[in-house]
Amino acid sequence: MAGSRSKASLRAWLVCPGLLGCFLLGFLTGWFTKLTEKNPNSSEAHQNVRQKLVAEMKAENIRKFLRSFTKLPHLAGTEQNLLLAKKIQGQWKEFGLDSAELVNYDVLLSYPNEEQPNYISLIDDQGNEVFNTSLFEPPPQGYENVTHILPPYNAFSAQGVPEADLVYVNYGRTEDFFKLEREMGINCTGKIVIARYGKIFRGNKVKNAILAGAKGIILYSDPADYCAPGVEPYPNGWNLPGGGVQRGNVLNLNGAGDPLTPGYPAKEYTFRYKVNEGVGIPKIPVHPIGYHDAEVLLRAMGGPAAPDSSWKGSLNVSYNIGPGFTGNSSARKIRMHIHTSNKITRIYNVIGILRGALEPDRYIILGGHRDSWVFGGIDPTTGAAVLQEIVQSFGKMKMEGKCQSPSGTGSRLHQRRFFYRRINKLGSGSDFEAYFQRLGIASGRARYTKNRKADKFSNYPVYHTVYETFELVEKFYDPTFKKQLTIAQLRGKLVYELADSQVIPFDSRDYGEALKGYSNRIYKLAKKHEEQLKLYKVSFDPLFSAVVNFSKAASEFHRRLEQVDKKDSVAVRIVNDQLMLVERAFTDPLGLPGRKFYRHVIFAPSSHNKYAGESFPGIYDAMFDIESKADQREAWEEVKRQISIAAFTVQAAADTLKEVA
Amino acid sequence: MAGSRSKASLRAWLVCPGLLGCFLLGFLTGWFTKLTEKNPNSSEAHQNVRQKLVAEMKAENIRKFLRSFTKLPHLAGTEQNLLLAKKIQGQWKEFGLDSAELVNYDVLLSYPNEEQPNYISLIDDQGNEVFNTSLFEPPPQGYENVTHILPPYNAFSAQGVPEADLVYVNYGRTEDFFKLEREMGINCTGKIVIARYGKIFRGNKVKNAILAGAKGIILYSDPADYCAPGVEPYPNGWNLPGGGVQRGNVLNLNGAGDPLTPGYPAKEYTFRYKVNEGVGIPKIPVHPIGYHDAEVLLRAMGGPAAPDSSWKGSLNVSYNIGPGFTGNSSARKIRMHIHTSNKITRIYNVIGILRGALEPDRYIILGGHRDSWVFGGIDPTTGAAVLQEIVQSFGKMKMEGKCQSPSGTGSRLHQRRFFYRRINKLGSGSDFEAYFQRLGIASGRARYTKNRKADKFSNYPVYHTVYETFELVEKFYDPTFKKQLTIAQLRGKLVYELADSQVIPFDSRDYGEALKGYSNRIYKLAKKHEEQLKLYKVSFDPLFSAVVNFSKAASEFHRRLEQVDKKDSVAVRIVNDQLMLVERAFTDPLGLPGRKFYRHVIFAPSSHNKYAGESFPGIYDAMFDIESKADQREAWEEVKRQISIAAFTVQAAADTLKEVA
Repeated sequence: MAGSRSKASLRAWLVCPGLLGCFLLGFLTGWFTKLTEKNPNSSEAHQNVRQKLVAEMKAENIRKFLRSFTKLPHLAGTEQNLLLAKKIQGQWKEFGLDSAELVNYDVLLSYPNEEQPNYISLIDDQGNEVFNTSLFEPPPQGYENVTHILPPYNAFSAQGVPEADLVYVNYGRTEDFFKLEREMGINCTGKIVIARYGKIFRGNKVKNAILAGAKGIILYSDPADYCAPGVEPYPNGWNLPGGGVQRGNVLNLNGAGDPLTPGYPAKEYTFRYKVNEGVGIPKIPVHPIGYHDAEVLLRAMGGPAAPDSSWKGSLNVSYNIGPGFTGNSSARKIRMHIHTSNKITRIYNVIGILRGALEPDRYIILGGHRDSWVFGGIDPTTGAAVLQEIVQSFGKMKMEGKCQSPSGTGSRLHQRRFFYRRINKLGSGSDFEAYFQRLGIASGRARYTKNRKADKFSNYPVYHTVYETFELVEKFYDPTFKKQLTIAQLRGKLVYELADSQVIPFDSRDYGEALKGYSNRIYKLAKKHEEQLKLYKVSFDPLFSAVVNFSKAASEFHRRLEQVDKKDSVAVRIVNDQLMLVERAFTDPLGLPGRKFYRHVIFAPSSHNKYAGESFPGIYDAMFDIESKADQREAWEEVKRQISIAAFTVQAAADTLKEVA
Repeated sequence: MAGSRSKASLRAWLVCPGLLGCFLLGFLTGWFTKLTEKNPNSSEAHQNVRQKLVAEMKAENIRKFLRSFTKLPHLAGTEQNLLLAKKIQGQWKEFGLDSAELVNYDVLLSYPNEEQPNYISLIDDQGNEVFNTSLFEPPPQGYENVTHILPPYNAFSAQGVPEADLVYVNYGRTEDFFKLEREMGINCTGKIVIARYGKIFRGNKVKNAILAGAKGIILYSDPADYCAPGVEPYPNGWNLPGGGVQRGNVLNLNGAGDPLTPGYPAKEYTFRYKVNEGVGIPKIPVHPIGYHDAEVLLRAMGGPAAPDSSWKGSLNVSYNIGPGFTGNSSARKIRMHIHTSNKITRIYNVIGILRGALEPDRYIILGGHRDSWVFGGIDPTTGAAVLQEIVQSFGKMKMEGKCQSPSGTGSRLHQRRFFYRRINKLGSGSDFEAYFQRLGIASGRARYTKNRKADKFSNYPVYHTVYETFELVEKFYDPTFKKQLTIAQLRGKLVYELADSQVIPFDSRDYGEALKGYSNRIYKLAKKHEEQLKLYKVSFDPLFSAVVNFSKAASEFHRRLEQVDKKDSVAVRIVNDQLMLVERAFTDPLGLPGRKFYRHVIFAPSSHNKYAGESFPGIYDAMFDIESKADQREAWEEVKRQISIAAFTVQAAADTLKEVA
């Protein structure tokens, strides 16, 4: 672990909006300046160091890292990905980190069978396969001879050759299945369903399909979601070509980590469950296809038409829901051929350390995963390249001795609001999950991404395809590499501030404001059931009261903070411990209902979309679709229980900010 | 909470060997000397303060406290017990604590019905009650007119009037039921069972009876266990009179705390389960009787004779097991009449604080419960009286300014081994449970108790009876009050050492030695199944390896500790944090199987006797009676899983002792 002068844990995240799994490239860093309590120029010195730190960073360096790291596929668990780990390790040592080590784990991974390819067929009355989906993506120019490119697949799919009618389920969201089952009376039991990618994490689509009784699920990318208007398909533009297919895992881990060793590190000595007992592994076959293939399958379908225009993608088909196969095809059923298998495989983390001078037992963690589905042009390698440049810059500062003596006391600089300015609802589907959702370590991400309000379509259509190359980034996303440089500088400064500020630059008052907003929001949701609130005596008052107490404790804390003798290093450490531990206080050791590894009471990945964050998730989930619950009294009792847990947790967090003793 | 200079959390415990419930009188204290880093006479000053601290304490003061606190019954949840809380609070303020407050909780308690007394009948063929057990204990001399003495009962018994044959089950231990069912072929299903008190926690007896299918259980005190040879019954001696009855709760909480709010504080706003959903509440009636009544019931019994002499108590009966009623009685069955009911009741903690000067965010907790079943002559009031004298002494030291300037640096005094010298297996049935078993806060108890190896009989026969009076202590147990004084002085010194030693006087090497012993012991147990170990590939090597790593890390830690610059207060705090947190590292957030609030992996209350401690309880329980498990492979897989968890946990604890960064 990284020694550092820092007092808090932070995760500054990668440019990539998606992720591949739970494989961490951990870069644990920190800063090493020796702050003394006497130097009156400390604030200036602190700013100088920060400026030099970012001035060291160069767009051209990031370009070279990205070029070097994306030449070959780096699928998790492969030889190529180990070689990349060693390359990064070597460079970190060169850059001047105090140490850089490989740490291995043996986790359950999933690979297609090289002898028996996965595909989907349309079959006719006689059982003949009249159409088969493609077995691979046409490789991009210049990469035709690259080996070890695995064809598109959904990792952790069950094996099987199911045959059934096809039902189109739109995005496969909870509300889509509700519409099918409750409004249209369409039963998915025993059917194969086809869902378009987008809106929610693919694992949630699979879970919904299983709950609906489906015996298989096909995922495809619809041009409505993966082709921006006026943009050419790759290589002439950044849109998804018809033969491009999004890979990705379809686990429902709920934070368990390795499916076979939930709660414990996947080391040699660790007990492993059998694969059929593993956490979150789907029991049905799942397979992804591109829109050329999807068009054929959807065209063959008959049955009822899509309920409204929101269900219609933009393929040249009529978007029937099925089942039926009354389209202009001889096809009568769908057959999936899935032979993907799970395998316990060794993976490697690279752990780098920059030792801190004053508080070597406090850590800032910066990092992300290294493995990629193919070349990982954006996901994750823009992040890895940015990280590499940050390490290089910190290393240079250390080697040149620039940071030996910028000493500081608590100046205005230290006291200004910094990090909590925007408390967003962190969801998951990225690498901070275990730190934030399980352990309650304050976490953040900093990236360029689309403006969700303005952009309805994906700005990253070739995500997880073979077309995610270096050229994609260089030609379309960041030709000057200045976006990546900006992120490197921002993250570098973030780490530096966290490491070198005498008082951690967190402002709990902002957390109080956020809690106020979330409690109002959940109450507004509850008010839709005003009669039930009265009938079952459901009160949010304890929660509101706890939130008020938190804000009050935060205000008083920050008022006292100004009086703290900054020359008293133990007194400073005490307040820093409070700032650091307030996040921990938001966790409940018992976890959320049915999701014991999601222990943060204020935020969790949405139960309906892992990518999204939900606030007060315990209360939200208890109220979700509550009108359909058979025992209304019992259902509202659970809401009351969740309100009580939230109120207690917020109150406990408020208590951590109170004056000690 | 208590501010203090201290760096660790300790629980020094009460003289009482039993307990009444989970009602805490929390006295959180600390010390307030201002250590500077320069004074070379610190060690001497430290010793002077310690000497004065214990010299302040007087046996006569303890006598007065005990006299004052035992005049009336102080049952949990009663007005008298609230008045006692206020009295203690007032005295603590007088003594000079920085604060003393009452904090209330609303917990499920259990009381007999005043209109419908509990008793047990022998009934004849016509259903006539030919004998009824007594409704109260004859009060001791001088207490005849005291009101609010509740008759003997087992708190949290189910209500009911079951009628059935009687089966004698010896102590009601797991092995006793095994003998009955497996060796003698006696089935307890539908029967009322009678067990003698002793050997294990009464709640375990009740649990075993329920598992055996019994519809009621009677608990009695046999003279073999509750009358020491050559000692008169109270009031002429300290033995149990024939009409004396041990009260006590029969919950199987497994650390859950209040049965209706497991995992959360029992405050006004907390969600409460319905009583029938409460944790650990038995589903059958339970009632305690004395040996005069027991003799009648046992005499009426016929049936098979006790299997061997170990099952025979010392009543003037033949110790048949039953069922049968072939004895010289017209009785043919037993009828229990139990009308005890559960009630959510307000209770009060007294929280006193002595603020520390240097590290007000580190606490030492000293305390125990205040409520008593009747007068609480020994349990808990000897503990409360001792605590009161400790508070008075610390208060005097503070008021007289004796501790204003004994300054110290790390002297030999600080470095000597102190607290971990004897690491005993803490079980439970006492008030440290939540701190140690759930939270992993280093805990201890200091008391006079019997020599378990020499004394086979109880040395405390009137435990939880009306005869536990002030006079019992004054006449028989501690006439000079010097035993209690010794405990007060020991606990006072313990708290002072923990609060004022610059480096916490813990030696992790001793913990390493203990782990070595425990791992050898559990392996020895496993070796009884040598064939299975081979067949199912069960290896203890990872555990042994982790234990070696722990010892190595501990040695290196203590070697580095000598090099720590004791003038660097942050460096000292860092090592103290490590010493404090190593205990926390032994907890597993997932808890033990089926006992999620017992999270310490090294120690837990035995699954067969809450009073006893078990080491490596996860492994132990997985192997317990393993030969009778239907699926041997599955059973041994669970053993492997538990070994893996233990190995990981010990390794994680070793890591907390490693050099930071």
